[in-house]
Amino acid sequence: MVNFKIADESLASKGDEALYVAENKMPVTTGIIRKRFEEEKPLKGVKIAGCLHITKETANLALTLQAGGADVYLCGSNPLSTQDDVAAALVKKGINVFAWHGNTDEEFYWCIRECLKESPNILIDDGADMIITAHKEFPELIENGTIIGCQEETTTGVKRFQAMEKQGKLKVALFPVNDARCKNQFDNELGTGQGIIAAIYGMHVLFAGKVCVICGYGHCSSGMALRARGLGANVIVTEIDPIKALQAKFAGYQVMPIAEALPSADIILTATGCKHVITPTKEMFDKLKEGVILGNLGHFDIENLTQILC
Amino acid sequence: MVNFKIADESLASKGDEALYVAENKMPVTTGIIRKRFEEEKPLKGVKIAGCLHITKETANLALTLQAGGADVYLCGSNPLSTQDDVAAALVKKGINVFAWHGNTDEEFYWCIRECLKESPNILIDDGADMIITAHKEFPELIENGTIIGCQEETTTGVKRFQAMEKQGKLKVALFPVNDARCKNQFDNELGTGQGIIAAIYGMHVLFAGKVCVICGYGHCSSGMALRARGLGANVIVTEIDPIKALQAKFAGYQVMPIAEALPSADIILTATGCKHVITPTKEMFDKLKEGVILGNLGHFDIENLTQILC
Amino acid sequence: MVNFKIADESLASKGDEALYVAENKMPVTTGIIRKRFEEEKPLKGVKIAGCLHITKETANLALTLQAGGADVYLCGSNPLSTQDDVAAALVKKGINVFAWHGNTDEEFYWCIRECLKESPNILIDDGADMIITAHKEFPELIENGTIIGCQEETTTGVKRFQAMEKQGKLKVALFPVNDARCKNQFDNELGTGQGIIAAIYGMHVLFAGKVCVICGYGHCSSGMALRARGLGANVIVTEIDPIKALQAKFAGYQVMPIAEALPSADIILTATGCKHVITPTKEMFDKLKEGVILGNLGHFDIENLTQILC
Amino acid sequence: MVNFKIADESLASKGDEALYVAENKMPVTTGIIRKRFEEEKPLKGVKIAGCLHITKETANLALTLQAGGADVYLCGSNPLSTQDDVAAALVKKGINVFAWHGNTDEEFYWCIRECLKESPNILIDDGADMIITAHKEFPELIENGTIIGCQEETTTGVKRFQAMEKQGKLKVALFPVNDARCKNQFDNELGTGQGIIAAIYGMHVLFAGKVCVICGYGHCSSGMALRARGLGANVIVTEIDPIKALQAKFAGYQVMPIAEALPSADIILTATGCKHVITPTKEMFDKLKEGVILGNLGHFDIENLTQILC
Repeated sequence: MVNFKIADESLASKGDEALYVAENKMPVTTGIIRKRFEEEKPLKGVKIAGCLHITKETANLALTLQAGGADVYLCGSNPLSTQDDVAAALVKKGINVFAWHGNTDEEFYWCIRECLKESPNILIDDGADMIITAHKEFPELIENGTIIGCQEETTTGVKRFQAMEKQGKLKVALFPVNDARCKNQFDNELGTGQGIIAAIYGMHVLFAGKVCVICGYGHCSSGMALRARGLGANVIVTEIDPIKALQAKFAGYQVMPIAEALPSADIILTATGCKHVITPTKEMFDKLKEGVILGNLGHFDIENLTQILC
Repeated sequence: MVNFKIADESLASKGDEALYVAENKMPVTTGIIRKRFEEEKPLKGVKIAGCLHITKETANLALTLQAGGADVYLCGSNPLSTQDDVAAALVKKGINVFAWHGNTDEEFYWCIRECLKESPNILIDDGADMIITAHKEFPELIENGTIIGCQEETTTGVKRFQAMEKQGKLKVALFPVNDARCKNQFDNELGTGQGIIAAIYGMHVLFAGKVCVICGYGHCSSGMALRARGLGANVIVTEIDPIKALQAKFAGYQVMPIAEALPSADIILTATGCKHVITPTKEMFDKLKEGVILGNLGHFDIENLTQILC
Repeated sequence: MVNFKIADESLASKGDEALYVAENKMPVTTGIIRKRFEEEKPLKGVKIAGCLHITKETANLALTLQAGGADVYLCGSNPLSTQDDVAAALVKKGINVFAWHGNTDEEFYWCIRECLKESPNILIDDGADMIITAHKEFPELIENGTIIGCQEETTTGVKRFQAMEKQGKLKVALFPVNDARCKNQFDNELGTGQGIIAAIYGMHVLFAGKVCVICGYGHCSSGMALRARGLGANVIVTEIDPIKALQAKFAGYQVMPIAEALPSADIILTATGCKHVITPTKEMFDKLKEGVILGNLGHFDIENLTQILC
Repeated sequence: MVNFKIADESLASKGDEALYVAENKMPVTTGIIRKRFEEEKPLKGVKIAGCLHITKETANLALTLQAGGADVYLCGSNPLSTQDDVAAALVKKGINVFAWHGNTDEEFYWCIRECLKESPNILIDDGADMIITAHKEFPELIENGTIIGCQEETTTGVKRFQAMEKQGKLKVALFPVNDARCKNQFDNELGTGQGIIAAIYGMHVLFAGKVCVICGYGHCSSGMALRARGLGANVIVTEIDPIKALQAKFAGYQVMPIAEALPSADIILTATGCKHVITPTKEMFDKLKEGVILGNLGHFDIENLTQILC
């Protein structure tokens, strides 16, 4: 019996189409791992709960875990990324999903709790919310050994757990997926960094000839700088870490303080993990060009950009 | 009184939003030329007919001609590019529009005729269809001097008129806009070349690590190659003009015959102006990778790509 | 019998080594054209005089013309480019050479006259000096049809002949090699543009992280900009032609007036064909960074750069 | 009193010119650190021995240490890199130098011993030879605390010391300079990677249009790949580490096994730290193009390249 709360079960067939694309574009997960899991069933009897972006790609992951014998429970790690059609398709295939697009903060935690109530053995987290909720509200799952291990996907999440570990508050074994070379040198630079550029470019904004200011020069932001330049923009990097700033300069970018960079910018993209990169003051606003495009690459929609726009 | 046939007048306010964007992104047309036209009215009493893509950008052109005193008549140069909301906004502002998304071949020519019936003095064409129709069906407009001059925007169109001129059949003064350095070195390379890449990239297809085959190395296709490489693709160029092929090679691309290039391709984009670049045979099909993305940059949707897909 | 005046005949065997390299690196000239010329002897009885850079590459051209049956007479088109070892090797192989490194202005014209005294039928020029000397001092060669045609290799030379033609003063048939697509889109952009960059880079100057100002954005200078960027420099372009300036901007470079660009420059390279691009004033000098590298790509060593250094 | 053995003291004034360039191009070492050292004399009474490339840049380092109060003793870390003029200039300024271009293996170790005989307190090594010699032949310097610390600059050297540490054989405190972000992300990628490209490019080899095979995709080799592409080459990477190979592929390079890559190569550069990357067999040789350029970036001249050429 499948347990779930989603937006609309009738979207399942549309979700199936999305799944078809993902399965074909993820040959390692689909063709190699799932195939082996189907034969070996290494996860038989294991309950896995994931707090993830409910998209066609994580759907493919969930179905692969299921193929390995696991019972899978999913909730959404970001209310704005849940694809309701994919959720419906997953439910039809026997994945327990508690997620719908645009849920509230309260509903967000309700969904996490529904997953944890099922007494999962492994938690897969994207931003630390599920594992922290387990610590706070389901401590018995940790104490009695029901939860045997956890994973965290993001830089943000890993940093939160490192802080907990220092204070002696982290009570579970944790695998920081984010720190794998295969994650941060690919997903962060090529995937995340590309996402925001693709979103803007896909609206047929011409990057060629424009001044594009990239705030930050870490994995994600250096990926964004590379792509913006590849599309013909003149890229200016702002960065407070002196060694990263030097790397940006030696990569051929202009590097300068943000206050100097803003007045000439046609496009400004921030990816620093911090708030207030562009301070939301009238003084700062008055410096910006009419029609400048502002974008932020971050965990939620409440980072610096929104604050500017208020 | 405005004369028109469009899809839906009620879309005007949505079209106004699109116009707002275009007006802000086209400072020369809007801020310099239109301002001067409003004062000087150089086109007072002139009737201008345009067979153009009915988009927010050409809308901005039409309104600028109107500001200069002209009566403007528009029909769509491609049934698939007409934006019905923009058409509605234009009608409300007094532009005579005969265009709707997805019209048939017959309707396409009906729209051209509606414009020509108004006895225009200047024709602005995108693909030669309106000017050729004027020659065939409205010869009196040419003979009696009503039509004082024409413009053609595209490589394809200019080539058709050069052929007509050789045979002594071109009866109007024609300005080949396409041959202006400001057109082919910018619009073709940066705009047209970018369009198809932006459309695919905007669907979050990762170019990095993929093999992208670009068929042709003219203005549009070399622009596509540059952008595909800028997005991290390994680009292979196919080109039958030996000097252009050499240019592609010296620009650092692999250059090879199309039959050799196809088997390794993840993305194939053609921009040659010719049909059958990829021959629609079973033999050719069997060489292609599962899931390859095929795209064509051309005047209509009946070029080589569609033929493959049939 | 070979007629010649060169620096040192004993350098011939060293010149042979240079020739060996050129012959292997120029497979079309050596392997295809020379082979055919040896069989067909299409230039039998023809006297060809060339005023060219006496380097291993033009040596390969001269030997190929000789293989076709021609008598070849060479003088140097630039006193600083003549390779004395190559000149010696050529003399030994039967080419009539009048050239040595560092000859004076007077000697330069003496060498040209020695070639013209031989009553050549075809002139190959690099900078217009030989053909103009023929007009001035050997008009009978033109009038009596001894000279049947001429070629000019450079932009500078072609411009001089276009001016002469307008005034009705050009009396010979002239083939402007420079205007061939195979010349200006390859030799100018890739070869000439690369030369100055290679010379500096070969001294192990790090371009990465430096600000490199390129004055001009024609064939040669755009090639230099591309290479400087490819080596990691942040490139600023200065250009007075508005369309070329726009091309530079859309290629992702910063574009600004020279006076604004100079103060931040680590390397400044000019390739405009004009003098005084950097005006040799104290005011301009005081703006330059300590240790800035200045370079000029031009026909002689008396263009703007030297004037600065005086 | 200065102790030394060099090639030719009379070269000192030529060496001074080289020093002048280095001092101006190294503003941090010269302008900031040396200035502070001159005032604070933090190294007063300290003996420092360096086994380094005796070039104008390390000369600048030696003079800065001297300005801080140290007695400096230098020997060359590579017999082929010693600049005899720089050595002469250093001796004249009071640096004890034991180095000359082209010394033999036996002489190489004699020079190291001369430095160690002076009972230095700090060793600066480039390749591990001096520190290992200290362990083997001057153990008392380590045991009695004369040597208070060591530095090693290269990847190769650091690896040797890590192996010694594992076996409990490393007896000194060692600072692995190579592992500093400021070293391997700049010196290795930008400097070392550039060196070999600059050497070839400086001989006016056209990279544009050539196939350049880079063996390896570590810090140095990825820098070489970037520069070769920046000069217009079509770059193929060979790499046995699967994650690095994937990085190369996602950076847009072709990636393939070396045996597949060689036949199309115009230029082959190896930077793997290993021998026999290109196996010196007749079978391999027969695959190479006539006139292919082979280069190796390594610690000595006895790595794979030489072996091929034998």
